[in-house]
This record gives sequence, structure tokens and C-alpha cells, in this order.
Amino acid sequence: MTSIQKQIILTKKASTTLHEIKLSQLNLLLKNISKALVDNAKTIIIENKKDVAKMNIDNPLYDRLLLNETRIEAIANSITKVIKLPFPFNKSIEKKNLPNGILLEKITTPLGVVAAIFESRPNVVADIATLCLKSGNACVLKGSKDAHHTNVAIVAIIHKELKKLKLPIHLVLLLPPDRKVVNELFTATKYIDVIIPRGSNSLIEFVRKNSLVPVIETGAGVCHVYVHEKANLQMAISIAVNAKTSRPSVCNAIDTILVDEKISSFFLPLLAIEFEKKQVAIIADPRTYKILKGYSKLAKANNEDFYKEHLSLTCSIKIVKDTKQALGHINEHGTKHSEAIITEDKKTATQFLKMVDAAAVYHNASTRFTDGEEFGLGAEVGISTQKLHARGPFALEKLVTEKWILKGNGQIR
Amino acid sequence: MTSIQKQIILTKKASTTLHEIKLSQLNLLLKNISKALVDNAKTIIIENKKDVAKMNIDNPLYDRLLLNETRIEAIANSITKVIKLPFPFNKSIEKKNLPNGILLEKITTPLGVVAAIFESRPNVVADIATLCLKSGNACVLKGSKDAHHTNVAIVAIIHKELKKLKLPIHLVLLLPPDRKVVNELFTATKYIDVIIPRGSNSLIEFVRKNSLVPVIETGAGVCHVYVHEKANLQMAISIAVNAKTSRPSVCNAIDTILVDEKISSFFLPLLAIEFEKKQVAIIADPRTYKILKGYSKLAKANNEDFYKEHLSLTCSIKIVKDTKQALGHINEHGTKHSEAIITEDKKTATQFLKMVDAAAVYHNASTRFTDGEEFGLGAEVGISTQKLHARGPFALEKLVTEKWILKGNGQIR
Repeated sequence: MTSIQKQIILTKKASTTLHEIKLSQLNLLLKNISKALVDNAKTIIIENKKDVAKMNIDNPLYDRLLLNETRIEAIANSITKVIKLPFPFNKSIEKKNLPNGILLEKITTPLGVVAAIFESRPNVVADIATLCLKSGNACVLKGSKDAHHTNVAIVAIIHKELKKLKLPIHLVLLLPPDRKVVNELFTATKYIDVIIPRGSNSLIEFVRKNSLVPVIETGAGVCHVYVHEKANLQMAISIAVNAKTSRPSVCNAIDTILVDEKISSFFLPLLAIEFEKKQVAIIADPRTYKILKGYSKLAKANNEDFYKEHLSLTCSIKIVKDTKQALGHINEHGTKHSEAIITEDKKTATQFLKMVDAAAVYHNASTRFTDGEEFGLGAEVGISTQKLHARGPFALEKLVTEKWILKGNGQIR
Repeated sequence: MTSIQKQIILTKKASTTLHEIKLSQLNLLLKNISKALVDNAKTIIIENKKDVAKMNIDNPLYDRLLLNETRIEAIANSITKVIKLPFPFNKSIEKKNLPNGILLEKITTPLGVVAAIFESRPNVVADIATLCLKSGNACVLKGSKDAHHTNVAIVAIIHKELKKLKLPIHLVLLLPPDRKVVNELFTATKYIDVIIPRGSNSLIEFVRKNSLVPVIETGAGVCHVYVHEKANLQMAISIAVNAKTSRPSVCNAIDTILVDEKISSFFLPLLAIEFEKKQVAIIADPRTYKILKGYSKLAKANNEDFYKEHLSLTCSIKIVKDTKQALGHINEHGTKHSEAIITEDKKTATQFLKMVDAAAVYHNASTRFTDGEEFGLGAEVGISTQKLHARGPFALEKLVTEKWILKGNGQIR
């Protein structure tokens, strides 16, 4: 048995201690962690600087990696919000007497051990650990080399608070940032109940291909805004600019704008003026390219470009014939994350909302709202882009499983 | 592109026709299928006989495979019950106005295309096809060679009814019973939304190892009855006999009886009298073996035996020291399907119900009730033994996914 396997088994064992813990203790733990993060912000930032120093500022992951006092406070506030949310386990979902007299009840219970594999963002460590604890789960965390100093600093703070309350530190297990250890997660079906890869498409693909433990896919978002012929163009520009530029490194930022051909020659130059101000690079299909000739950062799109999640100030633009073609394009290129239509035509909007197969579908709003906090669910483990168990923000309420309880007095069938 | 891939793509396309269909049409379709199965019972039985003729009567799958008029009527009745259930899609789960004015709604939608891989039982074809149709899904079915004549006959009847209502027959696609085609399902992530393996542990393991499409594991049940020292022994015998012998070939039948050592020398001989009548073969741990010496079908258990799903009139028996050891044994050997405790002691029962990590946990009742119909959920696609999405009977209500719909008037973040 490897040392990693031993650690994972200890985490599984630790998870059962949460069956007996008082709920008030759990909330106290989270409160203490939240406070300790702010109190130790300077230590975290020192460690974060070691990580940041190794990364090129042009790297789209740079912004994700960077921590400052404001961001640490945001993480701590996020935990405070989690404290206020109801505990998601031991909830009775359904209760009925069967005709044979058996009392049948469906309740929620913790998943057990949740494993997360993620890339640069260091807030993920605190978010996932506290969400798992609040939902009665232990967690196994595997971050990237890029953020390792930061991750170690944050987990050390969490461990200190676990110890203070005499809880096993294995409730939150941080693995070394080494791809090899991931294989040990993949085969630990007996000790890990779900694996959540959070990051690039290639990471998710890697986990999906290799894990025997059930996977919840999250994160990769090739998202679209479709500007319909009957769009309020001012609104369309405002939403497109927001969805592309307000935080380009995150998954709910858009990658492609689809423009109805009937308004394209009027709309695109207006959009370009605003994109120019924000220094957005445009990758254009041939017709868009023709209209925007002269734009400072313009390139011709090849077929592959429309499958790309840019994670930077780059935007693909394509002109479409009609809503049907827009739907076809989204269906082919989207990753079932967040998709928007801008139109004043209700019938078209309804059709779009119905036909697009994605976690979140928008009418006249920015895709940037796909987020647990924004949806009022609290911090999230990730944005699920698959269809089972959780879809969209994978937040506290979904970090549980169900169990059927049957109480009888000798019933046989 | 292979011919199988082409068929799967046609099924994906066909699935979108269900977005537009009137609900009354869907129920009419199911009604027609139910009636047609009964009307064509003789044809089905003729085809079933071809399958049954190839199987040895001692094969534990023989009983699963066999169809007669009563069983066909049961299938048809099952469909009638599905008709009466509410449609599980387009249900609003949550609806709220966000502080920014966006109207946020979570609704259920069909999964899209559901693939099922299963072994001998021919009722599976009708059950899964009708459950999928009722929930707005198309399905891809891959049965075993053993039941292929029967499966073809049933699907032909369904296709006839689809055609009558001018619906695409690809809504229900039956693949050839060839393991090779399974690999094409595993990689069809773009066209298939979930794969459900229904059958033996080795089938499930094979699917879990190889599928890139998300999997819901169902079926394999190594189930236990734990007879606590404070059990009503008459009740314990009645439940153990029922759970073992009423239909030994199904997954909710028990495989192992755990007996508290304090009552074992009294309880086991009583149990043996009843097991003798039903010709149950006993595989015993050393202490049980000693007590039951002289029983006609007695064998010594090796370690592996306690991991076996017998699917026949064979029962493993083991004496345990206390509840803790019983829980430890179940945790190690169970497949998280159905577990029961027989006791008059409420505190122990509560602990058992809490600590056992399984889809269905029983106090003083037979595990044989783990079943969609018995739970009042209608027919099921299988019994989920994993923790995500659906646990226990995977019935109509879980054959959907969720979608967040956001309606705004220009909101940006």
C-alpha cells in the first residue's frame, strides 16, 4: 500500500466522525476557519507570491492564481455565507406509509469522501473544504504545482482549526501536486465517492477517461451570446462586452458571439468600438472579417477556433443565417455550460430557452451570472456541465446523496 | 462512420422530436404499446421459447429469461402504471427573482438519449423503452444474446406503434447482441447522455472501466440480513427465508445472513429447518458450520464467498460478535444495495439505519421490497447502487436532468 492510499483510507475513516458531530460544532469550525484565513492573510499572501512569481503575467491563469487581501476576505465571506445555509444532509425528502404498513422515508446523507482535482485557483481549496465539511463530507484535494505554496498555507490554517476542535485533520487531505497521485484517486472506488475535476478541458477529459470513481464534470465553458435580429442592440453590446471582458479567465465568460446576418453590418462595427476600448482580440469568420477589416486585433478564424475556450481577451465572432443555425452552432460547439440569446422577440426567446441543451440558458442577460453565489446557493465546488446529479453551480445542496429507510414489523414479499 | 454510429446519431436526432410532442400523444403511445404486448403475447412467447431452449434449466438466469402470459401481462400492467404517473420533465423545481431583477428558474428536462446494457431479462426492454418515452428520452438498448429473439419481438411491437403515430422508430434503438457494439456506445459522448448497465458485477465493472459516457451503476446486490441478539426470532426466520427464497435470481434477494453469536446456537437450527424445506444450500463460516453439522447442503465458506452475489438458492451465513462487527462486515462486503437488521431494540436499529451506507436500509422487513413498484415509483430502469443522481430504484422521476433558465432585461455583472 502506498503512503497516498494510506492517507486516503484515513480520510475515509475520518469521514465517519462527521456522522456523530453536533451541527453547532460544524458551524463553529467554519466560523473559526473563516476568521483564521483573514487573520493569516499576510502569511497566505507571502506564500501566494512565491507561486505568482513563477508565472508569466501574460498567462491567462495569472489572474486566477493571484491572491490579495480583498480576495482573501471574499473567500472568508463566502464561508460566512455557507455557515448561514441550512445543512443539506439528514433532510427528509419523502415519507410515506406503504400499503403493507412499512414506513418508507427518503433522506439525504453525506456523500462520504469527495475528491477534487483542480488547477491554479487557490480559492478552490477553501471553498471546497468548507462546503464539504458543511455537508458532512471529508475531502481529498489535488491542486496544481502552480498554486502549491498557497494551497499548503490555506490547508495548514484549516488543519489548525480542526485540531483545536479535536477533529481529525484527515477530514481535509491535500495531496502533493504530482500527476502520479491522481491515478491512486482513480482506483480508490472503495474510499472515494465522487471525483470533481475543475479546470481545463484536457484535465476533465483526462479524469473522465481514467477514473473508476464516478465523476462530476465541471468547469470548461465554451459559451455563446447569440444576437438575434430583433435584439436591442445597445443591450446586446453591453451584455457581450460584459460577458467577454468583466473577467475573461473564468468559465462563464463567453467565447463566441453569434450575430444574425440581418443586423451584422450595423451591429458589428458598434461592437468593435467597445471591444477596441477593452483591447479584445477578435477571431472572425469570413463575413465578420470583411465587415471588421481595419480593426486593430483581427484574425481569421479556422474551424478549430470555435471549439476553443479562450480564457483571455479573445473573442470568436460568427455571422449566422437565423436562430436555427445559431442553435446548430451552439449544439455543435458549446460545452453545455451557459448560453444566451439577446432578443426582444419572446417567441424566439422561448424557443431558444427550450432547445438549447445547457446548464444555464439566458434571455437578455450576461452569462457571467452562472455562479453559486449569484444563484443564491452559496459557494460552489464547480459548474457542472454534465447532466447527472448536479447541473450548473454544484453547490452545497448537491453535496449529498440519498438513502431509503424502511421501518417494518416483519413484512415479507 | 460505422452503421451503429449512424443509428445512434439518428436516435439523438429522434430524441428532439419529443420536445415538440403533445403529452397526450405520449400517453396514447404507451397505452398502445401496452395493449399490443398483450395482443401479441403468443408471438412473444414463441420467440421467447427459442431463447429459453438454448439455456440450461439450472442456470440462475433461466427464471429471469422465461416469459409466459402472466409475465407479459405484468409488463403491460407496469406500462399502464407508468401512464398514470406524472410526466417528470418541464417541472419547475425552483423559481425566484434575484436581487438584480433576473427571474431564475430551475426546471427538469429530459436527459436526451439513455443507453441501457443488460443481461437476460426480457421485461427490461419494455420497461426501459416505456420509461424513457414517458420521460421524453430516446433510448439505445443492448441486450444479451440469450434473450435476443425475445427482445427483437418486443421492439418490433414498439416500432409498429411508433410508426402508427408517425413517430421515428429510432426513438427506441435495439442494438445487435454483440459485445463489440458496446465500445461504440462508450465513446458516443456527443450522442448518448447516460449509460445504465443492468446485470452482473462483471458487466457493471466492464462498463465503468470503459465508458466515457457517464454511467449509473445498477443491479449487483450483495445484500445482508443481520439478526441482532434482540431479534424476534420468528420474524427473523420469516424475513430471512423470504429474502433468500421468494425470488433468488433477483438483486434484492439476500446473499448472507449475519447472526449475533449470543443467539446463534438457538437461532441457526431453527433457520435450518425452514431452509431445508426450501432446499437452500448453506455456505457457512467455521462456527456456523459446527452448529449446522448434519444439514444436507452444507459447505465451508472461504473468504471469497462472502463477496458473492449468489442469484440462486445458496446462502452464506456468518456469526458476528456484535453490531459493530456486523456493520464492518456489511461495509466491507456489501454492494450498497439493500441491507436489513432484525431487532426489537430501537437504539440499535437507529444506529444500523444511520451507519449502513446503502441505497435501502431496512429495520424488521425483507430486502425484497427494494423495487420501483413497491416504493410506489412505477417500473424502474434498475436499482442504482451508486451515490450520484439516483440511489435505489432508478425510476421515472430520475430520468431527467435539470436546466437553469434566466430571464433578464439587460443585466450585466
